[in-house]
Amino acid sequence: MATITIVGAGMMGSALAFPACENGHLVRLTGTHLDRDIITTSIQTGRHPKFAKDFPLGMEYYQIEDLEKVIDGADMLICGVSSFGVDWFAEKVLPLVPESLPILSVTKGLVSTEDDELLCYPDYWAKKLAPKKHCLNAIGGACTSYELVAQDPTVVTFCGQNPKVLASMKTCLERPYYHIEISTDVVGVETAVALKNAYAMGVTIAMGLNEKINGVGSIPHYNSQAALFGQATKEMQRLLRILAGSDRSLYVGIGDLYVTIFGGRTRLVGSLLGRGFSFEDSMKQLEGMTMESTVITERMAHVIKKMSEQGKLNICEFPLLKHLGEVICEGKSADIDWESFLDTNL
Amino acid sequence: MATITIVGAGMMGSALAFPACENGHLVRLTGTHLDRDIITTSIQTGRHPKFAKDFPLGMEYYQIEDLEKVIDGADMLICGVSSFGVDWFAEKVLPLVPESLPILSVTKGLVSTEDDELLCYPDYWAKKLAPKKHCLNAIGGACTSYELVAQDPTVVTFCGQNPKVLASMKTCLERPYYHIEISTDVVGVETAVALKNAYAMGVTIAMGLNEKINGVGSIPHYNSQAALFGQATKEMQRLLRILAGSDRSLYVGIGDLYVTIFGGRTRLVGSLLGRGFSFEDSMKQLEGMTMESTVITERMAHVIKKMSEQGKLNICEFPLLKHLGEVICEGKSADIDWESFLDTNL
Repeated sequence: MATITIVGAGMMGSALAFPACENGHLVRLTGTHLDRDIITTSIQTGRHPKFAKDFPLGMEYYQIEDLEKVIDGADMLICGVSSFGVDWFAEKVLPLVPESLPILSVTKGLVSTEDDELLCYPDYWAKKLAPKKHCLNAIGGACTSYELVAQDPTVVTFCGQNPKVLASMKTCLERPYYHIEISTDVVGVETAVALKNAYAMGVTIAMGLNEKINGVGSIPHYNSQAALFGQATKEMQRLLRILAGSDRSLYVGIGDLYVTIFGGRTRLVGSLLGRGFSFEDSMKQLEGMTMESTVITERMAHVIKKMSEQGKLNICEFPLLKHLGEVICEGKSADIDWESFLDTNL
Repeated sequence: MATITIVGAGMMGSALAFPACENGHLVRLTGTHLDRDIITTSIQTGRHPKFAKDFPLGMEYYQIEDLEKVIDGADMLICGVSSFGVDWFAEKVLPLVPESLPILSVTKGLVSTEDDELLCYPDYWAKKLAPKKHCLNAIGGACTSYELVAQDPTVVTFCGQNPKVLASMKTCLERPYYHIEISTDVVGVETAVALKNAYAMGVTIAMGLNEKINGVGSIPHYNSQAALFGQATKEMQRLLRILAGSDRSLYVGIGDLYVTIFGGRTRLVGSLLGRGFSFEDSMKQLEGMTMESTVITERMAHVIKKMSEQGKLNICEFPLLKHLGEVICEGKSADIDWESFLDTNL
């Protein structure tokens, strides 16, 4: 039996408690300062306030003040903070974590550095904590938390530098419904699953466009969604080759793109944008929603612009991402220029 | 003004009459022997019996007996037969077509030869008609006929050997809602869009699996669909590299996969398979439905088996396609082995 500490009691961090605990491990679910009510409720009721099902029996729940205590003696630490908590995790949690304690992060995203380079979170943390050398691993792939809790068959990728650590994490967490592949292509996997957040918003714009033309609640049209999905695939493949040196983890991002379009919050924003609302107005309508997808879109749009100026890529090959950046950063209306997608493959 | 003859008055062939006629061309919509009633109805009402909208004015409608007449003086011939009509087209139509008349085919699929090689239809026809040299081109991409008629923004790829011919066909048919890219990667585009028929059935099995567990009409789950979509992407990319020598047209197949899952008939079969019905029983329930997806799945499953025996690929890298073959050809129940999807990318 291993002791698995989860820091961050949002939906994804908390959902991982299920496979871990079902496998007989001791799970210490620890809330951040933002999760205080979640932990209180979980202690009182045995259930996360957003889940339709009780946590497995035998779990332990902690508030953030117990951080040192829950790290002590742990065999694995799962980082379940959102991408808005990445710096908090680096400053408040990582300094307490011994280098011998392997970390597995479910946080998806990329950070742009001052030099306009993109770093995945494991690399960002490693840089911040240097010369300390943590064993940093991450989860990529198509997995919404509530469907993991509902035991819908799910396939994810654990990525990191050390295959032995990955294999041991896989053994700890795999379940008949939670299937884990392992990969050392950290940058590829993390870039792919970060990008899907931007592109999911892009694809869902077609849903809103259709509602704008045919009325809210009208029969969905899929040709236009598919055109954007194909374009997203094309641009993600190109970006992976440039940023990760290989597109071998493209499928991880494509599966994740699919689930994000249907299972996530991103489609609400995309639909509003497609219906003609500005990004600002869309976000006002969805008051209180945290939108990780907008952060990554902003960062990516900025970086491809800079990289294009530096001759590292041709921004004309990324018309969808470019336009998403204009919509989110410059207040432009969503107006898909379908002709800009057309390749001439001769 | 050009004269465009369409042979095959099924939904897809007939849908192309809209952009062609709207662009001011003379369209001769010609039914096969199976389309007799469609042509009669179209002459009487000005509308295809399956469309919600009249054909543009000025079109001409012909029965198959007028084949020679409609070919005479045509500037482009569109082949709109289903994949079940590919041999009929080769035997009855192509011998009447002068080599100077460019052909554009909307039929998607691959043929397996006696030597267990796969041929896309343009290559299959070229081989059959040799030494005659027709100018054979094809349309790939995500486009359901009824959404094309409804003017949902649509992006497709015209592929062929001659860029000038492709550019001229693009000019004839492009519309503000119908966006056309051109490509000389004929084998890549045609393989990608044929494969999506097999894989769309694979992805939709998850819809049925969910209904089997949680009841027909229950809330859809997307983790499992996404796992299959990711696996389909992985296998399609691998197959394109082997069969077409490059995966540069992968995105065409991925967009098409997306639209087929949602816009097509394939999902009806996949859902029944996922719910536990055998392929035979599923087809009985869908009596009268022509299922092009099952034909391509059979052919592909057979060919990857043969190619694996010949050492040209490793069938273990295509577990989803292999299983789809077992379900369709060997009467096995759909039983997704999720563990077989797991890569170890070290």
